[in-house]
Amino acid sequence: MTNSQAILNGDRLALARMLTQVENNSQEGRSSLMELFPHTGKAHLIGVTGAPGTGKSSLVNQLALHYRKKEDKRIAIVAVDPSSPFTGGAVLGDRVRMRDLSGDPNVFIRSMASRGSLGGLAQATANMVQVFDAAGFDIIIVETVGAGQSEVDIARLAHTTLVVEAPGLGDDIQAIKAGILEIADILVVNKADRPGVENTEKALKTMLELAHPAERIFKHHGVSMKVEAPKQKQTTNMWIPPIQRAVSTEGVGIPELADAIARHVAHLRLSGDWALRERTRLEVELEALIREGLMNKFKEEMKAEAYETMLESVIQRKVSPWEAAAVLMNGRQS
Amino acid sequence: MTNSQAILNGDRLALARMLTQVENNSQEGRSSLMELFPHTGKAHLIGVTGAPGTGKSSLVNQLALHYRKKEDKRIAIVAVDPSSPFTGGAVLGDRVRMRDLSGDPNVFIRSMASRGSLGGLAQATANMVQVFDAAGFDIIIVETVGAGQSEVDIARLAHTTLVVEAPGLGDDIQAIKAGILEIADILVVNKADRPGVENTEKALKTMLELAHPAERIFKHHGVSMKVEAPKQKQTTNMWIPPIQRAVSTEGVGIPELADAIARHVAHLRLSGDWALRERTRLEVELEALIREGLMNKFKEEMKAEAYETMLESVIQRKVSPWEAAAVLMNGRQS
Repeated sequence: MTNSQAILNGDRLALARMLTQVENNSQEGRSSLMELFPHTGKAHLIGVTGAPGTGKSSLVNQLALHYRKKEDKRIAIVAVDPSSPFTGGAVLGDRVRMRDLSGDPNVFIRSMASRGSLGGLAQATANMVQVFDAAGFDIIIVETVGAGQSEVDIARLAHTTLVVEAPGLGDDIQAIKAGILEIADILVVNKADRPGVENTEKALKTMLELAHPAERIFKHHGVSMKVEAPKQKQTTNMWIPPIQRAVSTEGVGIPELADAIARHVAHLRLSGDWALRERTRLEVELEALIREGLMNKFKEEMKAEAYETMLESVIQRKVSPWEAAAVLMNGRQS
Repeated sequence: MTNSQAILNGDRLALARMLTQVENNSQEGRSSLMELFPHTGKAHLIGVTGAPGTGKSSLVNQLALHYRKKEDKRIAIVAVDPSSPFTGGAVLGDRVRMRDLSGDPNVFIRSMASRGSLGGLAQATANMVQVFDAAGFDIIIVETVGAGQSEVDIARLAHTTLVVEAPGLGDDIQAIKAGILEIADILVVNKADRPGVENTEKALKTMLELAHPAERIFKHHGVSMKVEAPKQKQTTNMWIPPIQRAVSTEGVGIPELADAIARHVAHLRLSGDWALRERTRLEVELEALIREGLMNKFKEEMKAEAYETMLESVIQRKVSPWEAAAVLMNGRQS
């Protein structure tokens, strides 16, 4: 039996092995991904993001527990830690989570750190999600620490994006929210037993009014290549991101959050946005693969000495990087 | 007189105009960048990063004021806000800074938000830095909000990377530090008048001991293509990142921080690491330009219908993205 078949049959060890292969971007990983691909497209992908200190991890834990106990769903969690490009900084998170969710065969938690290369993390995460999707997990939660490009990538990957906030996190939080809000499908004010929760909620409401969700989906599509955007059914009912309070350490607000997520899924199905997000996600992935393929081909065909000589000229400011890139790209063809 | 010549002559308006062209990645911007490139390579690039709430912006302001008053340096600040992919979230920052530094012709502050595309932000920032460098600014400070891939890109861009922390920022700050620490040349404990400063400092020291700075430079070089790493002089004296306390709102600790930065520059010059970082930075930039060029060429040569048909097959799970990418790349050649 191949590794892919074992995964389709629910073999946990095969799954763990393949996740490692995929994270390392190995040849076996690639082959298995291709075999598994026809079995993907069924899972609900939930992205969870927000600034440090908002209690994201405990929220994700509680949400996973809820889905296990109340809805009997199979849950996968991918905890992405892009702040750790060099070491495996996500290990701690694993240990903390273990206490609540370990031993349950229908929960699979995987932490990963950045591979150090721009774009590599998003690609590796997308691949892991595909493996979990094919393996029959109903809900896949992708959680990221920090605020930045990785959040945008999550928004592209997820069907439902949760942005987590908490009261009293310092002064430049406000600046962050403005951008992050626009990728949110649901806003969670966690640690809602803390003082200042009303202010946080009020600030979020004001900012929500400033954001223009109507434009979002189309900007979502901004990575499309030189093709016309597909004709989509007009979205009849707009989704206004709800604000949900929670105290995740005590499980408060979790059922209500799960309800809001269910309403969002219903909205996506009804409006046709589910299909649109699927398309965008696959388009982003296809483009990333083409980029990578083109670069690999270039490197294979490139003479190391020619590259090194050109780089030396750039360092000495004799040739600009733009000219160097043009010369190297043309040289490859002749 | 061309725009580039005006910039070399210190024309502030021409500089502002070109920064906009560069941020928009316009054709004029590209041409001017090429003209300016021979004049680059003199500025000291300082990256400043850290979690929200650490008071980075006020620290950068104070540092800029110090360099103006005590050392008569010309200072440029690029405030990058990757958390705002869709709107110009960096506007607020501009207004706050204006109070302290506006009116000084030897200070130039520029805020920018993400261009929404992966890698676009890093490239645009690198280009802005080149413009400031050619325009004769002695010190260019690049500041980012958040923690993630953008920090790694800053580390690649900067000669000296400051990581800013502050006491009492919540519980998952610790997880962030582990990865971020490894890109730090200098650690700043800002808001050092707050309770808990000793604990923050102690935690940083412990983590510093866990990090292995000896390996860092070479991993820095991890983006190199299929060429041998250049033979470098053995680094005789290791740089151990110092921990500097500051209360930036009151200017406390700023002269000491400037001293630490000066020591780091001396170290870079002495050890040969300055040249190594220059090389890495230009190599990263060259590779990014090649990636972009290859993709643009691919898009130009690609038939929109062929692409759309293939994407549709992927969405229907008839073809995997890997197969689709391969077919599209081969189709282009025949």
